Amino acid sequence: MPYFDAASSAPLHPVARQALLAALDEGWADPARLYREGRRARLLLDAAREAAAEAVGCRPDELTFTSSGTRALHDGIAGALAGRRRAGRHLVVSAVEHSAVLHAAAAHEAGGGTVSEVPVDSTGRIAPGGYAAALRDAPGPTALAALQSANHEVGTRQPVAEAAAECAEAGVPLLVDAAQSLAWGAVAGDWSLLTASAHKWGGPSGVGLLAVRKGVRFAAHGPADERESGRAPGFENIPAVVAAAASLRAVREESAAEAERLRELVDRIRTRVPRLIPDVEVVGDPERRLPHLVTFSCLYVDGETLLHELDRAGFSVSSGSSCTSSTLTPSHVLRAMGVLSEGNVRVSLPLGTLEEDVERFLGLLPDVVRRVRGQLGAPEQDEEVAARSAAPAAVSGPGGEEREDELVVDSLGKLCPIPVIELAKVIGDVPVGGLVTVLADDEAARLDIPAWCAMRGHEYVGERPADRGTAYRVRRRA
Amino acid sequence: MPYFDAASSAPLHPVARQALLAALDEGWADPARLYREGRRARLLLDAAREAAAEAVGCRPDELTFTSSGTRALHDGIAGALAGRRRAGRHLVVSAVEHSAVLHAAAAHEAGGGTVSEVPVDSTGRIAPGGYAAALRDAPGPTALAALQSANHEVGTRQPVAEAAAECAEAGVPLLVDAAQSLAWGAVAGDWSLLTASAHKWGGPSGVGLLAVRKGVRFAAHGPADERESGRAPGFENIPAVVAAAASLRAVREESAAEAERLRELVDRIRTRVPRLIPDVEVVGDPERRLPHLVTFSCLYVDGETLLHELDRAGFSVSSGSSCTSSTLTPSHVLRAMGVLSEGNVRVSLPLGTLEEDVERFLGLLPDVVRRVRGQLGAPEQDEEVAARSAAPAAVSGPGGEEREDELVVDSLGKLCPIPVIELAKVIGDVPVGGLVTVLADDEAARLDIPAWCAMRGHEYVGERPADRGTAYRVRRRA
Repeated sequence: MPYFDAASSAPLHPVARQALLAALDEGWADPARLYREGRRARLLLDAAREAAAEAVGCRPDELTFTSSGTRALHDGIAGALAGRRRAGRHLVVSAVEHSAVLHAAAAHEAGGGTVSEVPVDSTGRIAPGGYAAALRDAPGPTALAALQSANHEVGTRQPVAEAAAECAEAGVPLLVDAAQSLAWGAVAGDWSLLTASAHKWGGPSGVGLLAVRKGVRFAAHGPADERESGRAPGFENIPAVVAAAASLRAVREESAAEAERLRELVDRIRTRVPRLIPDVEVVGDPERRLPHLVTFSCLYVDGETLLHELDRAGFSVSSGSSCTSSTLTPSHVLRAMGVLSEGNVRVSLPLGTLEEDVERFLGLLPDVVRRVRGQLGAPEQDEEVAARSAAPAAVSGPGGEEREDELVVDSLGKLCPIPVIELAKVIGDVPVGGLVTVLADDEAARLDIPAWCAMRGHEYVGERPADRGTAYRVRRRA
Repeated sequence: MPYFDAASSAPLHPVARQALLAALDEGWADPARLYREGRRARLLLDAAREAAAEAVGCRPDELTFTSSGTRALHDGIAGALAGRRRAGRHLVVSAVEHSAVLHAAAAHEAGGGTVSEVPVDSTGRIAPGGYAAALRDAPGPTALAALQSANHEVGTRQPVAEAAAECAEAGVPLLVDAAQSLAWGAVAGDWSLLTASAHKWGGPSGVGLLAVRKGVRFAAHGPADERESGRAPGFENIPAVVAAAASLRAVREESAAEAERLRELVDRIRTRVPRLIPDVEVVGDPERRLPHLVTFSCLYVDGETLLHELDRAGFSVSSGSSCTSSTLTPSHVLRAMGVLSEGNVRVSLPLGTLEEDVERFLGLLPDVVRRVRGQLGAPEQDEEVAARSAAPAAVSGPGGEEREDELVVDSLGKLCPIPVIELAKVIGDVPVGGLVTVLADDEAARLDIPAWCAMRGHEYVGERPADRGTAYRVRRRA
């Protein structure tokens, strides 16, 4: 039963388990106490901090253990913004940050601050000079910039060192969300703050990292608390912290050996999925990416049904954003990239993934996709082609009658991918140059109709508000 | 090597350990995911919530798992205050709440709110009607009141049900900090919010509870996050949550059987320590108290040295407040009670404490205290008595000479208990009715000089600012 969702959470690493067990007996007491149980706990905590700091590439006194990666991001961003409140109230983030960053940004805006987003290209990568431009164009002095080391949905690595240099040039600290990449190595470049999450690398739940370089202004928000340098309130979770630090070291060693092997397995998926299955778009940067992660989208497929079918076949994968399945809105990452979100599948291989499991996945995927498409009544590729070839550049139909050169498809109340499927079914009914207007109220249509046009070579004319939902207009070009 | 500091953190309970181990394998995945690993994690989380809710006495959908008891308090108080922001900006707390509550109150004040403290008597208990009075006298409408179920330093139980009724009468929600008592039973009374911390009952670190009754207005603060009903951001720590819930049930069963036994062991300490050791004050309510906790203060003793000596003798105890050892300010709890803070020792017995260990503790304590007093040059009790009896009601000294009826002792720069020791050494040098002024800059003197006067039957005249430090004035009465 292969688990292919390591980017969401990795199973507990054996070293983490072992360290946790040992620390349960030695690390339960309050490390602030002076008696032997407290001193033992303190020793464990100090050793864990040293080990984790070494892996992060910072000094132990720069590193705080938080209760999760999300807390590290929320509190790291709030603390850096508060620390530089007098310098400015502007925050720069990329458009493809984790939702925890975007939510922290929204909270900053709600508190009177301003935020700007650095755009990405269709691979999900920020442009060179993107942060310099954002800092230049900011509505006021910038307090903080944030950038992920690699994207959690599509695996694209960001040019962190370049962005850090651009920020340093402007005197602005850069916070790097290293949640997805820390298992694969330290983050290069002159970052100011860094966050990570232990359960992503096979450490236990309940541990995040927040590194704040000496000299970076930081003001912890919320009620005072003396633990973890005042940056993470609450009793220290020492057994989990010990397990997190020990497993990070172990995983780093293994990942150095595994990177090439998993990169090759991912390349197989990247190459073969589009060959095996019609109308699939593999997204993300093919080279500058995490070794173990690949994302693709399947036209005319409902992501949730696809995940369900793959689960029944024994494969655990996820659908792009962790937001996707719970909020039912299309992934903000795919939207920022301007790519198809329909039938989105993220495969992220844990260390030790068997080649034969990847082959098995590739073997059954085409059938699963075909079945889901069949259930949804998606047009067979042949049908579409037939429809297209039956409609030449003239306005006369197959029967020689005059055909409408403008059609309206009412997909109101229908969830994606239905609006796109209905569009595909009628595109052949208008002549080349003719217009199809799709009325839809599913937010994903905004992303998927333009993406479908790009895949099919039609012109996406644009959208406008309709009495209900939105009218998306498409001009037939092929 | 007996560990007598269960109120600070309890060793991991065997049931917690077992549950944690099992859940490490089953509960590492994201419970929001739809695949089997996610569904398994979700099942574990749901079952843990049901078990914990039953132990708390609330509905499962009223219970949130936080990353610590401190977070539960910080976020519970902030959320309740924000939810009732339009109703009022006033917060009522008792003077002896945990520092996490007082820090949250300080943060509320810093944000423009107001706070009032309900006083306690010398046993650490709030008066009947105390919350009603505080609500009546509040400077504006009250948003929230908070009260601990039992005090963490002296073990005194608070009349929570009465306070809850007083709050309900005024339409104000009451938050109960049940950190110290939850292992001993559910909190009675009509509370609105309740918090607790798993490592206090032998559960793992990293788990707090926050219960919010349906109908209580609550607005989570900080960035949005969809986990734990939006009340506790970050990836759920399911193995720890499972262990916390399982051990709470187990501990409840054991504590019902252990309560009487530990209560009797604590009574031995309460009774015999003052008999075995001169100048000791046992503090806290002798009856309405936690079964396992007792606190006493030793005149002329430095708490930290005493703890150190007890640690060397194999006993792990703590000194009153968790603040005490790290911030070196006297415990706010003992201050609010108006009792001696000098040489403060808190003994809190874990479940299963052996009678013979308590006897051993009682056996060696007198020697340890005597040694510490000797090191500090404290007056022997006999000396003091001799000094007193050598100074009759007249102003003439033993040699028949006129004696000064006012003396000044300069204890500036000296830490407690030195100022009190120096006071005790000279009190016999003034006649009955004479005055001794102690100049001191250690904050503990403010508490310990009046407490010493009460213990010795002298009159504490008062304090006034001096050029350096504070001048404390004492009139000899015996």
